Amino acid sequence: MCQLLGMNCNTPTDVVFSFTGFAERGGRTDHHGDGWGIAFFEGHGLRHFVDHQSACESPVAELIRRYPIKSRNVISHIRKATQGVVALENCHPFVRELWGRYWVFAHNGDLKDFHPRLHAAFRPVGSTDSERAFCWIMQELAKSHAGVPTVEELSITLRELAQRIARHGTFNFLLSNGQALWAHASTLLHYVERRHPFTQAQLADEDLSVDFSSLTTPDDRVAVVVTTPLTTNEAWTAFAPGELKVFVDGALSAY
Amino acid sequence: MCQLLGMNCNTPTDVVFSFTGFAERGGRTDHHGDGWGIAFFEGHGLRHFVDHQSACESPVAELIRRYPIKSRNVISHIRKATQGVVALENCHPFVRELWGRYWVFAHNGDLKDFHPRLHAAFRPVGSTDSERAFCWIMQELAKSHAGVPTVEELSITLRELAQRIARHGTFNFLLSNGQALWAHASTLLHYVERRHPFTQAQLADEDLSVDFSSLTTPDDRVAVVVTTPLTTNEAWTAFAPGELKVFVDGALSAY
Repeated sequence: MCQLLGMNCNTPTDVVFSFTGFAERGGRTDHHGDGWGIAFFEGHGLRHFVDHQSACESPVAELIRRYPIKSRNVISHIRKATQGVVALENCHPFVRELWGRYWVFAHNGDLKDFHPRLHAAFRPVGSTDSERAFCWIMQELAKSHAGVPTVEELSITLRELAQRIARHGTFNFLLSNGQALWAHASTLLHYVERRHPFTQAQLADEDLSVDFSSLTTPDDRVAVVVTTPLTTNEAWTAFAPGELKVFVDGALSAY
Repeated sequence: MCQLLGMNCNTPTDVVFSFTGFAERGGRTDHHGDGWGIAFFEGHGLRHFVDHQSACESPVAELIRRYPIKSRNVISHIRKATQGVVALENCHPFVRELWGRYWVFAHNGDLKDFHPRLHAAFRPVGSTDSERAFCWIMQELAKSHAGVPTVEELSITLRELAQRIARHGTFNFLLSNGQALWAHASTLLHYVERRHPFTQAQLADEDLSVDFSSLTTPDDRVAVVVTTPLTTNEAWTAFAPGELKVFVDGALSAY
């Protein structure tokens, strides 16, 4: 099993604090040492980093911890290989382009018997069940809508597609197109919303705390979604099994 | 105008020496300070770094200079914005997936009146003429072949497509799918083949030399393609206008 981290904000925010705790699970405080990856949207653009070294040892992860890349939508993943060999092409998150936007996807779980029919447009490069599921989602989205739909319309389609895939196994995933962060839980996912008044947060995986009130303005809103809570003193909410939640501008959306 | 750097090898090789000289042109020895990018194939996988800071100042470029990522196919680009604003989504190289492989493309030149009809499968995310040309190449490749063709077949198709685009302006480009490096010159491109017996090379843009004979085995072969020669003491060959060359396993191929 792997671990997921997502962040959605109303203003570009760096993920250094959350990633520092999360990356510790890539080989040090947990056993997810088979590669990792992170993707940051910057407007329509995307920075995408993957490495098959463990997140706690990778020089690229070290860069992420030191270089505060500001983004409104971030997805990260640390991998414990269950299907597919340890290779760069099997590191999440995966990226595809659809309707002139980048789409980023990361998955935690197993979908052993999911072998959908994939047409020409989206094909897996690696050998994971996760990338296969992502390609199928992209294919079905492309069939369902002629251009970029609204977040509300996308959420309806994604909820239906997620249910169909989740019948085949464990399907905790994060997806973003830079406008919103979609998060689906089969078994395990938590989120927290940070907003004014901001307080101090204490990482669970490293002896590190941050006083968000000194780094934020009263208008800032940040939602963080993660496999298991990153901090010890914030109110994390567990997803119910089968739930797909949508985060827009740093807050849980009603869609 | 921008500058291009490509490397194709028969064994995974780091690009640190060539990139160090090349990155100096991103704002220091030349005026290409509007972003840069680099992509490394590792097997079927891809590492893709883009930054809208200049290559000589970017912390990501600093990582590339220090962390010897070994690859058989590398494409890099430093940008002097002529069309499209300075934004991450306009940084080359661009990446798309086709037939279950990643394709990487970078362009130097201007294609002001090139507005081909793009169907659903490949759409530009940014606003450059370059990404538009890449999307059209991907679309036409997808129409011309049912699955990944041989390097020879691809070269025939690409030669034809490059000619059609080159009518619209200056079209120096590099393209790779991890199997080969295709390079097309409208106006300016040079290459060098390094093979046994290896010698010492002296960078043109920085006071740095490297003795390749101490870093290589007699079987190693490396081809480097670049806008203008990177070293002062090697025999670089200029492309003729309209030439598309293909590099496989570190050598110029007959295709």
